[in-house]
Amino acid sequence: LRAKILGSAAGGGFPQWNCACSNCSRLRQGGLRGAARSQAQLALSADNESWWLVNASPDLRAQIEATSALHPRKGVRQSPIEGVVLTSADADHVLGLLLLREFHPLRLFATAAVRRMLLEDNSLFRVLDRFAGQSAWTEVVPSRTFSLEEGISVMPLSLPGAFPDYVPALRRTALTREEAVLALVLQSSCGKRMLYAPGLPRVEPEFLALAQDCELLLVDGTFWSDDELRRVRGSGPTAREIGHVPISGPGGTVEVFAGVRRPRKIYIHVNNTNPVLDKESAEYRQVRDAGWEVAQDGWEFEF
Amino acid sequence: LRAKILGSAAGGGFPQWNCACSNCSRLRQGGLRGAARSQAQLALSADNESWWLVNASPDLRAQIEATSALHPRKGVRQSPIEGVVLTSADADHVLGLLLLREFHPLRLFATAAVRRMLLEDNSLFRVLDRFAGQSAWTEVVPSRTFSLEEGISVMPLSLPGAFPDYVPALRRTALTREEAVLALVLQSSCGKRMLYAPGLPRVEPEFLALAQDCELLLVDGTFWSDDELRRVRGSGPTAREIGHVPISGPGGTVEVFAGVRRPRKIYIHVNNTNPVLDKESAEYRQVRDAGWEVAQDGWEFEF
Repeated sequence: LRAKILGSAAGGGFPQWNCACSNCSRLRQGGLRGAARSQAQLALSADNESWWLVNASPDLRAQIEATSALHPRKGVRQSPIEGVVLTSADADHVLGLLLLREFHPLRLFATAAVRRMLLEDNSLFRVLDRFAGQSAWTEVVPSRTFSLEEGISVMPLSLPGAFPDYVPALRRTALTREEAVLALVLQSSCGKRMLYAPGLPRVEPEFLALAQDCELLLVDGTFWSDDELRRVRGSGPTAREIGHVPISGPGGTVEVFAGVRRPRKIYIHVNNTNPVLDKESAEYRQVRDAGWEVAQDGWEFEF
Repeated sequence: LRAKILGSAAGGGFPQWNCACSNCSRLRQGGLRGAARSQAQLALSADNESWWLVNASPDLRAQIEATSALHPRKGVRQSPIEGVVLTSADADHVLGLLLLREFHPLRLFATAAVRRMLLEDNSLFRVLDRFAGQSAWTEVVPSRTFSLEEGISVMPLSLPGAFPDYVPALRRTALTREEAVLALVLQSSCGKRMLYAPGLPRVEPEFLALAQDCELLLVDGTFWSDDELRRVRGSGPTAREIGHVPISGPGGTVEVFAGVRRPRKIYIHVNNTNPVLDKESAEYRQVRDAGWEVAQDGWEFEF
């Protein structure tokens, strides 16, 4: 199983178009020891021929072009991209679907709730339905393992997360809350496992036990601290209020995952305001000392 | 009035993710004399301080980052982007709105039909409505001139175009066809005019008369020939069937605009399959000999 990180930033990317925080300003001016990052995007392949996307970021067009394995190889209109697995209906995880609209057949895996939030309330998704069989949806049921193809099995875990803000109140009442946010355990044919959780609203004990069993964790590194957004914007919700356990502080992921020692631990979905994006920051040293890495676009893994 | 072309390609961009036509393949391999292009996007400013977007392309995040005039300059969360004028509800003209979702106030100008196709049938657009006053919509009425700010007046022209494919049948019946597709005549304070028509379904005599009165035309250069898509994909609609007068052939824009001699004439919204993207092609020479240029990302104009 090969996994490529095509994007490692949270929604908005790094830098973010309307942000001049210390990170974004220094990055634009060339004064930051740290890399620009596009919005979180993972791609998987068992045979290096066909590829599966985990979520579909708004930066997907550029991410595909930057990745030669994802370029067409057979015929004039073709793509090695077979389909997409969605972990939520968050805008930064789904907008890229609308970029895959050029008459290419896609297999789409999502919970019933995620599919309904997208298809039933958004006519734009009809761009994926311009010919019979363009998009084929498969329902994902939390805790029920499914296979993308020989050599890629996926175990979806329900996380205690919320529906995105944009979902109308009436729609919410008709949906199953357990289907709002997933983490995925991706398993290769030799039984090695990787955990993908770009949004982690809370860490339950079972989640930690599962993490201990993996070779690789790609985990929500959106915010360094719970009040990070509020400090940059002057107001706003806490990290936990919008579904992200922060990295630092009591109950933060550094502390909570301290006992998880076997897997390689990597933060992904890192917000532009997060000080760990600066390799010269104390915060970056702290996460490195705690055994974590901070994902960058283009990283690859095989297991 | 300053105008910047942030993107010059048609929907899908150049290269297009699932295309290995002669243009796309040679561009990826470095064997094409021609530039990569992001999806059509125009930005306007009268004072070089505040900027207005014409349409909102799916590539907008990268387009903003590539344009220092559009970076934040005043405060930690800020943008010189004041708002957006929409010429249609086509996916490649509107998806970028969903990228401008980071709590930034925006003024949005669209016909009632375009606004309804987006807002009433797509819950995702609620990301632009997360606080009171985040998005302020102004109705555009064909042929009624409006002003974006001192020094930028806009005359919207109804074009004989269709609603996008994704719009449900029931919605179509409730909309005014004349509000589906617009061209814009942009006028500076000194009375100089530019015509922007990235989608041109048909050329009416009044349109030609108006074009003659402008300094600059940015006109639909999507397809070289009427059967271009069919030839690349093996099947599909003609250029005219999907709202684009082709460049070549009888009734094509080279022929139809031959008598329009005053303005600088530039093709924009160029599809990845169009041979004019190759500067060594006979077709490129033909349009240049006919007095046309082919837009590239980053071009700027002042008038």
